[in-house]
Amino acid sequence: MAEQFINLRNLEFLLYEMFDATQLTKYPYFSDHSKETFDLVISTAMQMGKDMLFPAFSEMDKKPPEFKDGKVYVHPLAAQIMKACGEGGWIGAESSYEYGGQQIPNMLMTAFRGIFAAANYSASVYPFLTTGAAHLITSFGSKELIQTYVPKMFAGLWQGTMALTEPQAGSSLTDITTLAIPTKEGFYKIKGQKIFISSSDYESIENVVHLLLGRIEGAPLGVKGISLFVVPKKRPEKNGGLVTNDVTCMGIYHKLGYRGAPITQLAFGDNDDCRGWLVGEPNKGLSCMFQMMNEARIDVGMGATAIASAAYYASLEYTKQRPQGRPIMAKDPLTPQIPIIEHADIKRMLLFQRAIVEGSLSLIFQCSQYVDLASVTQGEEKERYELLLDLLTPVAKSYPSEMGILSVSQGLQCLGGYGYCDEFPLEQYYRDVRIHSIHEGTTGIQGMDLLGRKVVMKNGKAFLLFIEELKKAIASGQETDECKNCADSLAEAIKILQNTTESLISIARRGETEFFLADATLYLELFGIITIAWQWLLQATRASIALRSVTNKEDENFYSAKIHTCRYFFTYELPKLKGIEETLVKAEGLTLKMRPEWFE
Amino acid sequence: MAEQFINLRNLEFLLYEMFDATQLTKYPYFSDHSKETFDLVISTAMQMGKDMLFPAFSEMDKKPPEFKDGKVYVHPLAAQIMKACGEGGWIGAESSYEYGGQQIPNMLMTAFRGIFAAANYSASVYPFLTTGAAHLITSFGSKELIQTYVPKMFAGLWQGTMALTEPQAGSSLTDITTLAIPTKEGFYKIKGQKIFISSSDYESIENVVHLLLGRIEGAPLGVKGISLFVVPKKRPEKNGGLVTNDVTCMGIYHKLGYRGAPITQLAFGDNDDCRGWLVGEPNKGLSCMFQMMNEARIDVGMGATAIASAAYYASLEYTKQRPQGRPIMAKDPLTPQIPIIEHADIKRMLLFQRAIVEGSLSLIFQCSQYVDLASVTQGEEKERYELLLDLLTPVAKSYPSEMGILSVSQGLQCLGGYGYCDEFPLEQYYRDVRIHSIHEGTTGIQGMDLLGRKVVMKNGKAFLLFIEELKKAIASGQETDECKNCADSLAEAIKILQNTTESLISIARRGETEFFLADATLYLELFGIITIAWQWLLQATRASIALRSVTNKEDENFYSAKIHTCRYFFTYELPKLKGIEETLVKAEGLTLKMRPEWFE
Repeated sequence: MAEQFINLRNLEFLLYEMFDATQLTKYPYFSDHSKETFDLVISTAMQMGKDMLFPAFSEMDKKPPEFKDGKVYVHPLAAQIMKACGEGGWIGAESSYEYGGQQIPNMLMTAFRGIFAAANYSASVYPFLTTGAAHLITSFGSKELIQTYVPKMFAGLWQGTMALTEPQAGSSLTDITTLAIPTKEGFYKIKGQKIFISSSDYESIENVVHLLLGRIEGAPLGVKGISLFVVPKKRPEKNGGLVTNDVTCMGIYHKLGYRGAPITQLAFGDNDDCRGWLVGEPNKGLSCMFQMMNEARIDVGMGATAIASAAYYASLEYTKQRPQGRPIMAKDPLTPQIPIIEHADIKRMLLFQRAIVEGSLSLIFQCSQYVDLASVTQGEEKERYELLLDLLTPVAKSYPSEMGILSVSQGLQCLGGYGYCDEFPLEQYYRDVRIHSIHEGTTGIQGMDLLGRKVVMKNGKAFLLFIEELKKAIASGQETDECKNCADSLAEAIKILQNTTESLISIARRGETEFFLADATLYLELFGIITIAWQWLLQATRASIALRSVTNKEDENFYSAKIHTCRYFFTYELPKLKGIEETLVKAEGLTLKMRPEWFE
Repeated sequence: MAEQFINLRNLEFLLYEMFDATQLTKYPYFSDHSKETFDLVISTAMQMGKDMLFPAFSEMDKKPPEFKDGKVYVHPLAAQIMKACGEGGWIGAESSYEYGGQQIPNMLMTAFRGIFAAANYSASVYPFLTTGAAHLITSFGSKELIQTYVPKMFAGLWQGTMALTEPQAGSSLTDITTLAIPTKEGFYKIKGQKIFISSSDYESIENVVHLLLGRIEGAPLGVKGISLFVVPKKRPEKNGGLVTNDVTCMGIYHKLGYRGAPITQLAFGDNDDCRGWLVGEPNKGLSCMFQMMNEARIDVGMGATAIASAAYYASLEYTKQRPQGRPIMAKDPLTPQIPIIEHADIKRMLLFQRAIVEGSLSLIFQCSQYVDLASVTQGEEKERYELLLDLLTPVAKSYPSEMGILSVSQGLQCLGGYGYCDEFPLEQYYRDVRIHSIHEGTTGIQGMDLLGRKVVMKNGKAFLLFIEELKKAIASGQETDECKNCADSLAEAIKILQNTTESLISIARRGETEFFLADATLYLELFGIITIAWQWLLQATRASIALRSVTNKEDENFYSAKIHTCRYFFTYELPKLKGIEETLVKAEGLTLKMRPEWFE
């Protein structure tokens, strides 16, 4: 099995050469840090990834969670990783000193999480889902809630979750019915069911803290009546003890992949004794939850990228070692066979993977940089980062998820029949990566979010800011010989984006909203290709400049590969825009006109 | 679980309205048959599929083959299906009366196999792999070999296999080293190893007959020294008994999917007592084997299509039953939720699946029709069918395999989180369908076959015949109002195909063979899209004409759906050509220029 699952040199390139993480230490909030701290974060993550997570990658898949007598038993690594991340301060690292955190930039924690996810995606979910849940409490919870829950969560003693989905509602959050009945004592009595809740119950952890969406008795219907609650599996008593809180695990799902983490169905309040505590204002729960969901969406994009990265390195290792066939022009069977990495079609499949992995990773770090900059700036500048982040979140979630599936599939294909067998890890990566276009909002939901909300919000302000960013990248790209052609192609792509967007918006202006949004998924695909092209152009431009003053062979290879992979993306992926543009402009609501009875 | 796995009405449309199977009965070879025989074939297959194969679909996956003490144990259905297909005459049905067959047209057997594969792909492999192996013996074997093996195989008593792949050779057949040492007695002593051999050993069958590629001692190196042998697991004695033939199963593979059939590693002659019998001429084995491989390649395309068909119906059933969300313009939470099939994005995912499934199926039947017509015609007409079949075989193998993966993935996506869980069959279809772009020659191999051999053979004669077929379809399409636009688009697509092909051939003419073939996989993709567009135009044209004299609502819906799905294909899939054309014309050997060390 490949020893490499992510490229450290590339992470350093993104952090220090592309997105200049050290620049952040100039801001007071991050001023205690330095490149040394950052390097330590990365090297710690690599060490934990190699020593603790990666060795259990296959075993966690082969020994998935078990549900016996109402209890969930998981692989021992779950408790170990929570303990290690708690003791090392990694769960709360991003949080402010006030809450026991270390004020580490999001960019660094993104690298940390990415390394974990590449080493073992399932295992990485436990600590970082806890991070997201705890951040919700620090952002919107009362002082008492923060004091009661956050230190335990940051310490890795209590698991955090997001409990949104219900059997009858699925993606339609407006139909959430979990009931919260106010009591004189200040807490709410919770009654309802949740499904598909990740890492939401297991015996080897002291407690689980659900950040749950429900509806206060008498609240308005629809999304305007949804509130956010903390609902622990066991409720903390004044004396420090824990009392069962009437949260019952009804079962676990048996999944295609991502088997190291238990996904459960939960019943709250079956015995009328489940207590929840309101987080934030009544009926404002959804907007609070969106903080966590937006973080989680970028994290899902990172998870997909990380799995695709590990699959890339596993397939790369195989293609270097497997001799088969000869160069096209040297068919003499007396000559030795060559490693398959020398065949053009294998190179294409490796380049494809690399273009997806490093393009997606760059976008994820771009988003992290916006998170960090928005947290330390004010006024218009802050708004700019926030708008760009809002616009790009559905793209950073879905492009890596959708393309990650294809990328891992090409990795599997590099191994031929062996890719289909469990002696090699590709088949597991193939199963694992398939979750990401589903959880935290399907690709369809992301498309509606991008076109129906983000592109049009504030009169298209975020969209215009994005075009500005593209134009800046084009201008610098045009200044280097290596990137000029790609920069010109991206300029053409902007026209396609603008034309297509205008064509769709004109439908919206006519009031035909259903038609306007019918192909939002395709629009998301188009937008995603352009976004990744932008990131590739930025990377190749940076690499071209660095190449001029390169001092060693490793760096020369690294930068040359960046430029070549950028060209690959612009030659093999960017042209796909033309077909999507034609479809979007010509489809004329074809899918809407398909009658359900015609499907029989 | 969905009760439907394939659409009977559509099979009838293809057989009787599109490819006019009854017309075949005018030829003496098929003259004993009639539409009644054909209907019986189809209804028998549907019955066996529903009663025998489909009910065990999930169980065969959950209880895969086991390897214990050198023996392979499989699900009881394997023996049952062999027995039932043997007794019913289905294994040899296509063969001539002379060999105990029934002279059933290939088109009908394609329908039969397709129904089986949609009901339970793994189970369908046992009997029909036996068919292919037996056909090789009837085509090239001596009278004695035929008499010894074929009746047992047609009776379902002995399993047939193809034993090509070796550990050190993989796809590179030139490097096959299995040795065949001649003996005075007329047989050969076989020594070697084979890997990835389907259905090649299991305890519940009396015997297994391997059609094996090996090299006679002293034979020329390379593909010109490969011979074909019959090598049984147990060799038949004169007295009718069976004696062990020194074929050892060394292990089975644990696979992502397709788990109902055992795939093994075999050792031949470890104790110097493995006997094989030559089939056909010495050193001509590869061309004999290609008869079986070409049949098998179209069968793989059918297998992929069949799985995608079953996945389509499973996802369709779910989308009709699952209420979630409301129409975009009716967000009032007091109104009831609607079934998700009414959402545009779900309709798009269903239409995509249907376009892939019914487009691919039509191509498979087109190929079968060529098989049948080639078998009953002579001279130039026969050559025409053979050339078209040769040209389209890599397309019929790879388009359904590659697009089947995406089609099933969209089926899975329709179910959201449930698609990822094993309560529904989608996750199994997703795993099962992934084999098809690997076995019987990977997609990369098919691309090289299409561009490097088929397009250029006989000075491009097959290619020109194909263009003629496209033009005929365009001419009829242009005569109906419903299809005129699609016909015009296909005319444009021909130009893209011609331009791209010429651009690539000009590279070959310069002698740059490696560069010429570097993007053969992309060329195959482009060729595939045009081929399926052609089949869709043919289907929609036929449906448009039928719609004029339709007498009932079911038929009206069926034909309307055909026309609408054709439009979907032309609007959502055909435009992809433009991007591929741009890549093929502009890539300039970019993948070749990628240096192996840059991948690190």
